[in-house]
Amino acid sequence: MEAEIIAVGTEITLGQIVNSNARFLADQLRRLGIESHWQVTVDDDPARISEAIHNAWLRNQLLFVCGGLGPTDDDRTLQSTADALGVDLAVDEDQWQAIQADFKRRQAKMVPENKRQAYFLNGGMPLANPVGLAVGSFWQGKDHTVVVLPGPPREFKAMVSESLLPKLKNLMGKPIISRNLHFVGCPESELMDRIQAVLPDKRVVATSYVQPDEIQVRLTVHNETTTNADELLNTAQEKILQAVGDYYFGTGEEVSLAKQVVDCLKKKHLHISAAESLTGGLFQATICSVPGASNVFDGGLVTYAIKVKESLLGVPKEVIDQQGVVSAATAEAMASHVQKLLHADIGVGFTGVAGPDSLEGHPAGTVWIGIAFPDHVESFELHLSGKLGRQNIRRQSVQRALLRIYHGLK
Amino acid sequence: MEAEIIAVGTEITLGQIVNSNARFLADQLRRLGIESHWQVTVDDDPARISEAIHNAWLRNQLLFVCGGLGPTDDDRTLQSTADALGVDLAVDEDQWQAIQADFKRRQAKMVPENKRQAYFLNGGMPLANPVGLAVGSFWQGKDHTVVVLPGPPREFKAMVSESLLPKLKNLMGKPIISRNLHFVGCPESELMDRIQAVLPDKRVVATSYVQPDEIQVRLTVHNETTTNADELLNTAQEKILQAVGDYYFGTGEEVSLAKQVVDCLKKKHLHISAAESLTGGLFQATICSVPGASNVFDGGLVTYAIKVKESLLGVPKEVIDQQGVVSAATAEAMASHVQKLLHADIGVGFTGVAGPDSLEGHPAGTVWIGIAFPDHVESFELHLSGKLGRQNIRRQSVQRALLRIYHGLK
Repeated sequence: MEAEIIAVGTEITLGQIVNSNARFLADQLRRLGIESHWQVTVDDDPARISEAIHNAWLRNQLLFVCGGLGPTDDDRTLQSTADALGVDLAVDEDQWQAIQADFKRRQAKMVPENKRQAYFLNGGMPLANPVGLAVGSFWQGKDHTVVVLPGPPREFKAMVSESLLPKLKNLMGKPIISRNLHFVGCPESELMDRIQAVLPDKRVVATSYVQPDEIQVRLTVHNETTTNADELLNTAQEKILQAVGDYYFGTGEEVSLAKQVVDCLKKKHLHISAAESLTGGLFQATICSVPGASNVFDGGLVTYAIKVKESLLGVPKEVIDQQGVVSAATAEAMASHVQKLLHADIGVGFTGVAGPDSLEGHPAGTVWIGIAFPDHVESFELHLSGKLGRQNIRRQSVQRALLRIYHGLK
Repeated sequence: MEAEIIAVGTEITLGQIVNSNARFLADQLRRLGIESHWQVTVDDDPARISEAIHNAWLRNQLLFVCGGLGPTDDDRTLQSTADALGVDLAVDEDQWQAIQADFKRRQAKMVPENKRQAYFLNGGMPLANPVGLAVGSFWQGKDHTVVVLPGPPREFKAMVSESLLPKLKNLMGKPIISRNLHFVGCPESELMDRIQAVLPDKRVVATSYVQPDEIQVRLTVHNETTTNADELLNTAQEKILQAVGDYYFGTGEEVSLAKQVVDCLKKKHLHISAAESLTGGLFQATICSVPGASNVFDGGLVTYAIKVKESLLGVPKEVIDQQGVVSAATAEAMASHVQKLLHADIGVGFTGVAGPDSLEGHPAGTVWIGIAFPDHVESFELHLSGKLGRQNIRRQSVQRALLRIYHGLK
């Protein structure tokens, strides 16, 4: 069974937004073992929507039509799809009640068009929308399955994950079980080489996805019972962590390193603080991006200039003069001093060169990170590529500090 | 003349990467006034590449085929396009010399396939690649123009901007002159309503693009001499700034509000500092994202907990007790105290509710920003929608503070 993804939206053909839905869906299909060789985007024009569906119908069996399910005049997708299939529209009465209740609660005025968001392809099933008003459609004909999905990425992802994937898994008739491992601080090629070298069983397939702040490795098992699959995945994960556990920080779908660290600190009733130079506040902002950060973080310092490292933080002038501002001694002093100053259990110090210019003869990407744990102080140096650019050097520095803290607390 | 954008790449149909080239090119075409209603993506399969070109040929006159120009076996785009058009391939001898010189310089081993990167569609022209080895093709037939472009986004953008756009402008036979205005802090619909209401001349067209941290408004004039166009744009900009100048922070292609503020501070020899609560360091990290920030920023504080606002920053306990932590008085005290503590010319204080939970009875999105200028202290309140989520509330707060500082310095 081969799939084709049709996106409908003038905002895409005009180049205002990128078609992120197609990437998300294609990735999900690949994980299910469904091949997809065509993606087509047209604007909100009924004739072009019909032409796209007609072409797709001739060459593929599983069609996804995405976007254009809103209540306004330029939302023509569902009617155009129904016309192309030669079917009527039906009303999802439950959703129609829910839409009316939502408008009542918001004291908003309804127009007749709002009912259109409860329509789906007659003869098919409505797909529930966990975060929006428009339902989707799941329609099966003799040789074809046609799925209609909403355009806003948040609604799209929620409907695909919660309403569509279970149906597609049934359609495929074979179970696929997978888990997602998260890593930071190792180049992707090296990480995957080392993982492939220790994978104990060919039934477990590992694929990697580079994200801005991490590398995700997905382990997948096809066509096994749940018990067998779990056993295979457990063994694989164990071998992988023996090989590259130094870079690992969690397993699951919604895992972030900052959240792992905050959760870990919270569980151990520890508070953290930081004194940041090249990162300029990014470490603390990352900690504060986690809801509930106030349980583990009271505040800290940004000490960008040398004189502020001395005056506000109290790093001895002679340490900086003798060892240099980009040094283990300065990073450790920053960590220890901010730990004391904020009465924190853990203090972190960042000093280094974000670039583009070099500093004290160190090229951009040279970073020292000091960490004052309750019982000892340590530091390590990063030699990041200057080509990463200023922002990525700062983000990588933050992630590497978080990883070290996470492992230090375990 | 209508365009169709065909992307070739298994990495897109597998969902490994998003098709950012299509968005970039569609946006450029729109600016030139070229309509584009179709985008098609296929994997690296010659038969599907041919089918995509065949379909596009029947419905559009300007075809872009993007990706798959590398030297490896799965790079089939150019040969497939040549087959579909019924033409041969020619060698760009200059590029072939350049490729050989590049390999020699890198002391890398050449294989016969490397010569393929110097091929282009016979009867057309090669398109120079400013940052890579593979040339593109610009081929014109009786009713059709076919353009072949490389896949890596860096090479794609460079070739489109530097080699393709001048040719397309000639093809269009009419000059298009535009400028880009940047705004923050006004809802897009209100901003555009107010701009449309004052646009003095129908020959100036305004279109808006919402970016994560700003709204860009592009003014475009077609078919006028440069002098006329400049005059029209100057008048339009003047009227627009009279109407919505409060939200404006710059004109140009590469403008960021943080950079505008840093440049402005640098010119006036002023230093800035901040004490941040809900933003958790994000304001300072944003300032530090601008190269050369050290000229205007020495450091500052993150005062997340109330006790740190009092102990480290010296905000009087009675201010917080009597006025509340989310208040004008607290924001102004934070700004003034950090200004003094860091010997800065300008101090900024952020206090508010990032969410998801409310604080002191204030819902998520309630933010007070205090700014201590050299000669006065001021503050203002934001009522952002809680639906924006924690990160966007924090980012918006930072942008709104930067905007106020920018206008305060003007």
